[in-house]
Amino acid sequence: MRLLLASRNAKKLAELRRIEAFSGVEIIGLDDVAAYPEAPEDGATFEDNALLKAREAVRYTGLAAVADDSGIAVDALNGCPGIFSARWSGRHGDDAANNALLLAQLRDVPESRLTARFVAAAAYADPDGREVVVRGEMPGRLIREPRGEGGFGYDPLFVPDGSDLTAAELAPEQKDAISHRGKALRALAQQIAPYLR
Amino acid sequence: MRLLLASRNAKKLAELRRIEAFSGVEIIGLDDVAAYPEAPEDGATFEDNALLKAREAVRYTGLAAVADDSGIAVDALNGCPGIFSARWSGRHGDDAANNALLLAQLRDVPESRLTARFVAAAAYADPDGREVVVRGEMPGRLIREPRGEGGFGYDPLFVPDGSDLTAAELAPEQKDAISHRGKALRALAQQIAPYLR
Repeated sequence: MRLLLASRNAKKLAELRRIEAFSGVEIIGLDDVAAYPEAPEDGATFEDNALLKAREAVRYTGLAAVADDSGIAVDALNGCPGIFSARWSGRHGDDAANNALLLAQLRDVPESRLTARFVAAAAYADPDGREVVVRGEMPGRLIREPRGEGGFGYDPLFVPDGSDLTAAELAPEQKDAISHRGKALRALAQQIAPYLR
Repeated sequence: MRLLLASRNAKKLAELRRIEAFSGVEIIGLDDVAAYPEAPEDGATFEDNALLKAREAVRYTGLAAVADDSGIAVDALNGCPGIFSARWSGRHGDDAANNALLLAQLRDVPESRLTARFVAAAAYADPDGREVVVRGEMPGRLIREPRGEGGFGYDPLFVPDGSDLTAAELAPEQKDAISHRGKALRALAQQIAPYLR
């Protein structure tokens, strides 16, 4: 069984491959697929975007596909950056610019209101028209100085509840265990396991 | 009667002076007050911030004071920039940077979801401990290219409902008549008129 992850992110591929429910499934990424078009992520929710990406992947490849959409929801910003997390600064995927902007916006917000959560939606779609979408969350709080070299995105600014380390200071397996994406992907894996046989 | 507007913005002073209910009241701004400290705007709502500023002004000057806090609430951004409007790019008061960032963030959002509203809270406080705070709103939609030379802030990107012009293309009196700040200031003026005699 082959499953396409609709992403070019090597870390996401590695994370998916570490999930037990996917052992025995050959997981490939978009870099393994020829001539894949870039579609705009114009959904209004994480779930919309994950499903849109999974459907696109099925349409262009004919393979069963998993896609995710994730981001950070800051309470003081009414849940923003949210689905705009990766392009918050206007520069898509520029983690340093996105982190710097978020910190600047929150400069005058008191410590006690720096609560946030990472949110991930994980979606599955296949050529038979089956679709599943689930959500995972990791609550925590923001700090004002980045810490840690691991992870990506806003990980260096985020301390998960119950931890003293930032998400960027956690080992990958520690992070998977509590992360929004880990939770969403495991829940998805369980639900779609019957389709992968 | 003297009334302090807790602002250094000449356009806001002029706007307040154009309000009929304030005719006969001498309105001064922070630039007319010596050694006024800059306080952080760390409230969680427009109303909080307007009241905080009005109270500060009373405390430092002993004068009756009016203050406002306003911004643009974009539906696709869950009401952000909101209270962060003036420092959205991290550069306080840099309209060009703030406008450019907002447009970049909304690049992939479909036209139909570019609805927004300007929101203003106007607050009054005086040495006798009286306080009033009111809210005004101007609904409309965003466009993708700035238009117009008037106004300030996000005005060049915003087309009020019922208009084809941006807020930056309206004459000051036209804008006052429909604007969030005009509505809030007129409502405030009516409520505080008895205190100004």
